[in-house]
Amino acid sequence: MQNRNPKIVALAGGVGGARLADGLAQILNPGCLTVIVNIGDDFEHYGLFISPDLDTVCYTLAGIGNPETGWGLIDESFHMMESLRQLGVPDWFNLGDRDMATHLVRTQRLKNGESLSQVTSDFCKAWGVSTRVLPASDDRIPTIVLTDKGSLSFQEYFVHLHCEPKVRGFYFKNANKAWPAPGVLESLEDADGVIICPSNPWVSIDPILSVPGVRDALARRLAQGIFVVAVSPIIGGKAVKGPAAKMFVELGLNATSLEVARHYQGLLSGFVLDKVDGHLAQDVKQVCGGEVLVTDTLMRDRGARRGVADKILDFITKIEVDRG
Amino acid sequence: MQNRNPKIVALAGGVGGARLADGLAQILNPGCLTVIVNIGDDFEHYGLFISPDLDTVCYTLAGIGNPETGWGLIDESFHMMESLRQLGVPDWFNLGDRDMATHLVRTQRLKNGESLSQVTSDFCKAWGVSTRVLPASDDRIPTIVLTDKGSLSFQEYFVHLHCEPKVRGFYFKNANKAWPAPGVLESLEDADGVIICPSNPWVSIDPILSVPGVRDALARRLAQGIFVVAVSPIIGGKAVKGPAAKMFVELGLNATSLEVARHYQGLLSGFVLDKVDGHLAQDVKQVCGGEVLVTDTLMRDRGARRGVADKILDFITKIEVDRG
Repeated sequence: MQNRNPKIVALAGGVGGARLADGLAQILNPGCLTVIVNIGDDFEHYGLFISPDLDTVCYTLAGIGNPETGWGLIDESFHMMESLRQLGVPDWFNLGDRDMATHLVRTQRLKNGESLSQVTSDFCKAWGVSTRVLPASDDRIPTIVLTDKGSLSFQEYFVHLHCEPKVRGFYFKNANKAWPAPGVLESLEDADGVIICPSNPWVSIDPILSVPGVRDALARRLAQGIFVVAVSPIIGGKAVKGPAAKMFVELGLNATSLEVARHYQGLLSGFVLDKVDGHLAQDVKQVCGGEVLVTDTLMRDRGARRGVADKILDFITKIEVDRG
Repeated sequence: MQNRNPKIVALAGGVGGARLADGLAQILNPGCLTVIVNIGDDFEHYGLFISPDLDTVCYTLAGIGNPETGWGLIDESFHMMESLRQLGVPDWFNLGDRDMATHLVRTQRLKNGESLSQVTSDFCKAWGVSTRVLPASDDRIPTIVLTDKGSLSFQEYFVHLHCEPKVRGFYFKNANKAWPAPGVLESLEDADGVIICPSNPWVSIDPILSVPGVRDALARRLAQGIFVVAVSPIIGGKAVKGPAAKMFVELGLNATSLEVARHYQGLLSGFVLDKVDGHLAQDVKQVCGGEVLVTDTLMRDRGARRGVADKILDFITKIEVDRG
């Protein structure tokens, strides 16, 4: 269980992805884990370049994330926000004072022509994160949410409008012109297994898969026999965090882990279901055409994250052994 | 003493200028006071446009300035700075968390093409400052300090190098191409009196006077008989704050209020000396060719600021009466 050596690539969005990545990082040997992170949520606000999912993943891996909210930093203050309000500027996106340093330095370095992956790598060093964290791309591929209130940028939909508009679909702007960030395809080529974290399939994982080359690399590696497993972000018809369940319903689908498995159809050799959804195991197995692990997938604290990661790695290893 | 109605223009740098401006604002009727502020210290840091003297003047007038340091805000925190240090970026310029809102909004608005004077006016409204605060220019005229360590930007000299290099002279870059901000010449034309605040003559007042049209307007108004009075920033051979005294010495001059009067020669009809320097009154009178007020000029608290302002306004009125 300890000092595990398989080379794992995790695809992650924000909170759920960050938590499983943290669990994996607690178990895997240094150098074995690469986390490829969604950048579709990235946006510019007050002239700052903000990468919410990258920050959530890095802060969580560094052990400095806010465990209550899932985003932002622990022991954070919001004094700048108070002063911004006094100046009458829009205050719907909450920026912590400590968190501001991240946005300020990233913005300046990007404007100086450095890449998001280089900046992220340097931040990880500064924060003591040994896991390799890669943005899906160094290009910008902003997620546009098509809704009954029109086309909205992701943060406009997610934070400003509290996910209230009904979604009709999604669009990853400029994704067809984007390049995978350095290391993304290489890490997939080199992986012993890929884990799609319990993140929102529509707006966390799909943006990563939309970067040209990523989905193909995943399909090719799957065909070569490595294990690709998705962990359901839907538990008992609900998302642990965020609008995933609401999105399924608004798109005319059932909000179930079976639909999650269907969403990734053709890309998986295994699926992880929460024990609450154990009754769906046979259907999921048929849909994903692979193995199914039914287990407790809630990750309330660091210990639980480690426990879930451990079971998933066991699952992968066991199937590998079965195949061998 | 109260509800005074003369139209006064004050030329101000940072702390000393802000304090006298606050004293004047406590006494003069709304609409009677215009403060023209040095922008030679303005600089870009972490991609932010920072206007130290404008902020000091506005914060002081708003009653939210830090009375201990003279700069920044009261009840300020520095959490962002702690995080910046962790990211290994230069931390020689201290930015408070609340103060950050000012820089962030100003930066964004300037980048959107708005003028510094428009932004300053809106900030003053938001902070409840009824005094008209004008940057000397909406153009950038960065002060360059010529030193024995080479040419340095002002903040590099002032904050980063703690004023340690020996000054040889000053240069206000692009000043010859700058325009006075809207209201600057108009307020001078309309003034009943001009007060040069106890600010650094070399790097606070001279940058204002270097904006084409300002010095001429002042000379013309002086010739028309309005009262132009300077308040010495040097008291007993020392500056209350900042490197003014050190600069006089390094430029081969005595650090005395007499040298301050000589610096403004031809521009004044009166001079305000601290009582510590009372013995210089006759010499100062000869140099400036006008009246001299000897009084306590230290402004430790808001009451003292009001007291000094009151005596200066008395001084102006009395001389006006004498003339009449």
